[in-house]
Amino acid sequence: MPETLICSLDPDAKTSLQMQIRQIFVEAILKRVLQPGDKLPSSRTLSDQLSVSRNTVNLAYQALMDSEYIEAKPRSGYVVSASAPVGRLETADLDTLEKRQDDIVDWQAKLIAPPQSLRQVQKPLNWREYEFPFVYGQTDSTLFAHSQWRDCSRQALGLRDFSNTVGDFGLSDDPMLVNYICSRSLPRRGIQVQSEQMLVTLGAQNALYLVAQLLINSDKTVILEDPAYPDVRDIVSRRTDKIETLPVDEEGMVLDEAVLSRADIVCITPSHQCPTTTTMSLRRRHDLLALAQKYDFLILEDDYEFEMNFIEKPSPALKSLDKTGHVIYVGSLSKSLFPGLRLGYLVGSHSLISEARKLRHLILRHPPGHTQRTAAYFLALGHYEAQLRRLRRHLATRREVLQSALEQQPLFEQIASHFGGTSFWIKGPDWLDSRILAERAAEQGVLIEAGDVFFASDNPPLNYFRIAYSSIDSEKIPEGINRLSALLHDMAEASPPA
Amino acid sequence: MPETLICSLDPDAKTSLQMQIRQIFVEAILKRVLQPGDKLPSSRTLSDQLSVSRNTVNLAYQALMDSEYIEAKPRSGYVVSASAPVGRLETADLDTLEKRQDDIVDWQAKLIAPPQSLRQVQKPLNWREYEFPFVYGQTDSTLFAHSQWRDCSRQALGLRDFSNTVGDFGLSDDPMLVNYICSRSLPRRGIQVQSEQMLVTLGAQNALYLVAQLLINSDKTVILEDPAYPDVRDIVSRRTDKIETLPVDEEGMVLDEAVLSRADIVCITPSHQCPTTTTMSLRRRHDLLALAQKYDFLILEDDYEFEMNFIEKPSPALKSLDKTGHVIYVGSLSKSLFPGLRLGYLVGSHSLISEARKLRHLILRHPPGHTQRTAAYFLALGHYEAQLRRLRRHLATRREVLQSALEQQPLFEQIASHFGGTSFWIKGPDWLDSRILAERAAEQGVLIEAGDVFFASDNPPLNYFRIAYSSIDSEKIPEGINRLSALLHDMAEASPPA
Repeated sequence: MPETLICSLDPDAKTSLQMQIRQIFVEAILKRVLQPGDKLPSSRTLSDQLSVSRNTVNLAYQALMDSEYIEAKPRSGYVVSASAPVGRLETADLDTLEKRQDDIVDWQAKLIAPPQSLRQVQKPLNWREYEFPFVYGQTDSTLFAHSQWRDCSRQALGLRDFSNTVGDFGLSDDPMLVNYICSRSLPRRGIQVQSEQMLVTLGAQNALYLVAQLLINSDKTVILEDPAYPDVRDIVSRRTDKIETLPVDEEGMVLDEAVLSRADIVCITPSHQCPTTTTMSLRRRHDLLALAQKYDFLILEDDYEFEMNFIEKPSPALKSLDKTGHVIYVGSLSKSLFPGLRLGYLVGSHSLISEARKLRHLILRHPPGHTQRTAAYFLALGHYEAQLRRLRRHLATRREVLQSALEQQPLFEQIASHFGGTSFWIKGPDWLDSRILAERAAEQGVLIEAGDVFFASDNPPLNYFRIAYSSIDSEKIPEGINRLSALLHDMAEASPPA
Repeated sequence: MPETLICSLDPDAKTSLQMQIRQIFVEAILKRVLQPGDKLPSSRTLSDQLSVSRNTVNLAYQALMDSEYIEAKPRSGYVVSASAPVGRLETADLDTLEKRQDDIVDWQAKLIAPPQSLRQVQKPLNWREYEFPFVYGQTDSTLFAHSQWRDCSRQALGLRDFSNTVGDFGLSDDPMLVNYICSRSLPRRGIQVQSEQMLVTLGAQNALYLVAQLLINSDKTVILEDPAYPDVRDIVSRRTDKIETLPVDEEGMVLDEAVLSRADIVCITPSHQCPTTTTMSLRRRHDLLALAQKYDFLILEDDYEFEMNFIEKPSPALKSLDKTGHVIYVGSLSKSLFPGLRLGYLVGSHSLISEARKLRHLILRHPPGHTQRTAAYFLALGHYEAQLRRLRRHLATRREVLQSALEQQPLFEQIASHFGGTSFWIKGPDWLDSRILAERAAEQGVLIEAGDVFFASDNPPLNYFRIAYSSIDSEKIPEGINRLSALLHDMAEASPPA
């Protein structure tokens, strides 16, 4: 056995020991370190050398045989198969590589727009390693029906569904998923549509993007909430400079008729305003729809979190009150399932959805078939309903714990939501820079989200922040808030209020 | 048991009998046809009623218990659980629904562009039901390493990988997949890049779309091959009217310096021209790169099918010869794995990829985590290499059979490719309308693709068509070609050449 193969396994690696063994041999064969006919160490030798069980080695060898990398020869044991694949790695042309670093293309001149800056909500990818992760929109693995999801995933990859999940759908979607969303999810929001009025998208964000491409150009005036979801502002600002904002109070977006009279499109989150969590009152919903008719503007309703309500009876979607077709509706499965799923949907008039379908085709063809079918099974088998119930039960408890913890901190002023959801929008003292608070809190294991990025202004208020409870255990909440509060007191002493 | 529940199972349905039973009860509970405490029929009664085994019923009941829809009560058997989820289906507001059909929005005025027409390659979704499917770009399930893919999919959904596959990646991708593409796939094309120069996209088409958005506006002149992939033309024509085309001969795109001197971007498929299957000669590649430097235009290289070569040693990608950064490279996993996977990648200079990453974020955030991780395992465990070998072996046989079948038909003129690939581009007699041929052939179970949509002209030649062998068994090929030839002879007699 060549010396290059003498290596050790990493017991802490994300990959199992058996897989690591397979990878070692696959790499060695592809790189021709091991050539066809070369003998592999016996499973006993290798298991001694690597300090793993013989069974682990045997399973790895069996898998290598199955994929024809190696074969068992009588009296020789395992050898690299004569027909083993070999990598066709070209010799690395280092000269070329180095020269290429001197890219002579002037990219600033080539790009049709100057480099964009996204104002993203700050969220470390390794948030799970923090003790008090008050992060928003991530999945709590302890609440997710993981084994049911795996069952559905396996089912969706079965031979029976093979042609559905692996093929190119063209302009279509998985009919099973479409059927369940139209017949189950949407009616629960009071929305009755035919399947041609619904398009599956790669998450709700993809739906927002499609609408912006189809309906907004530099002539159009778009009204956004302030504060609002930063990505919707980034999507819209790539299409037009004519952006106006309207503030949000406890009844949702404030309807300033003078501003709205200039609108072509109004983007809102009426069920659960992002980030303030307020719910738009029924009275205001009717007023907004009346104005939409009067001035013939369109309303883009992002109903991103409707299934996370657990306090009051949910108010039906704005779309369900829309008798004239002015409302375009966006739904998401990211909050109720998980964000990495990337499934959402767009609902609207036939003419709009038909164009959105063609544009989606050019952008990405369609969301992966396997993803669509897995979600369809999860819905069809009732796992989704059970999942929502479990989520709501836990979220209700967490919310209660968090609320009472917050109420003991006079420095925090919370905007009460009647809706539920997964977060609180907190107003700190005027002198607070929540970006500094977030930074110091992270050092103590507490993750919160500074609120400045949600505001439209280049000079936003800095004393707001978001605390979510969708990914943190109830027991952790009080201590997390205590630490936050202690930090805030320290900051108050260091830089006392003016 | 309520009468509404008296129903039968569909043995031919795509869903298993056990699942159908679960669905019946889930629907009934959600719709409150069955109320908490209601007794379910005993497994014996139900198995008799539905003519299925008791075991099937028991498994269905067990699953319903697991998801808390039902519970087992001593002496009562199964009852609907007190905490069973109920659908909150609003009563359908039929008035609203009907009124909504009278959509008063004038969508033609609202849409910023007139309705688009996509010139798609015609391909019935149910192509598997045809006996002779010479369709392009679809997966032959008999050649796909299905069980290995399932293993990788399950592995990627394991608890170990949970946070990777379900979370929001932000601007990132799965590092495992990025690592394998950069260290394994790209070097095989002679391309050495750092991971920041590569972006995972939702299929190759998504990569083309991103580049078009970033680099093309109405001032830019874009050169396309003619014929070419119709979707690339549709993507570009949404950005600019300044599109020029260059013909393709047996050495690939013809380099007309007068035309190229006006270019901002040149879109090409040098490894395997789509649809003619010719490979660009090395001489011409060098000439094209020299022209790109001379006139400072960019080259968008779509290397969509490079892994399907099996005849000659593959020529390295154009990108591998690029010393100045003028080439932007697009790769795909659709042909080697399956199109419903929707995974591809974009390779280019740091400045470009950095902007593409931000734009991708706004469009769709990122390709689903589970899809990325499954593909990463498939690559890492060597299944991908084994899969490619198997594909190439079978494709080589099929190609030989198809070629000899075609050679016996004097009415077909094939454009010989030195490369392999998965299709032939056929020139029929001048009088042929291949759309009619395709239509008549489909009636006889033979699917071919009319070639008109690949041409830029509004008045394209009609006598070309594409015959792919990636989804048809070798044994079927001769009979399929015979039928096609017989049809062509009939057409020749009916409308003899002028």
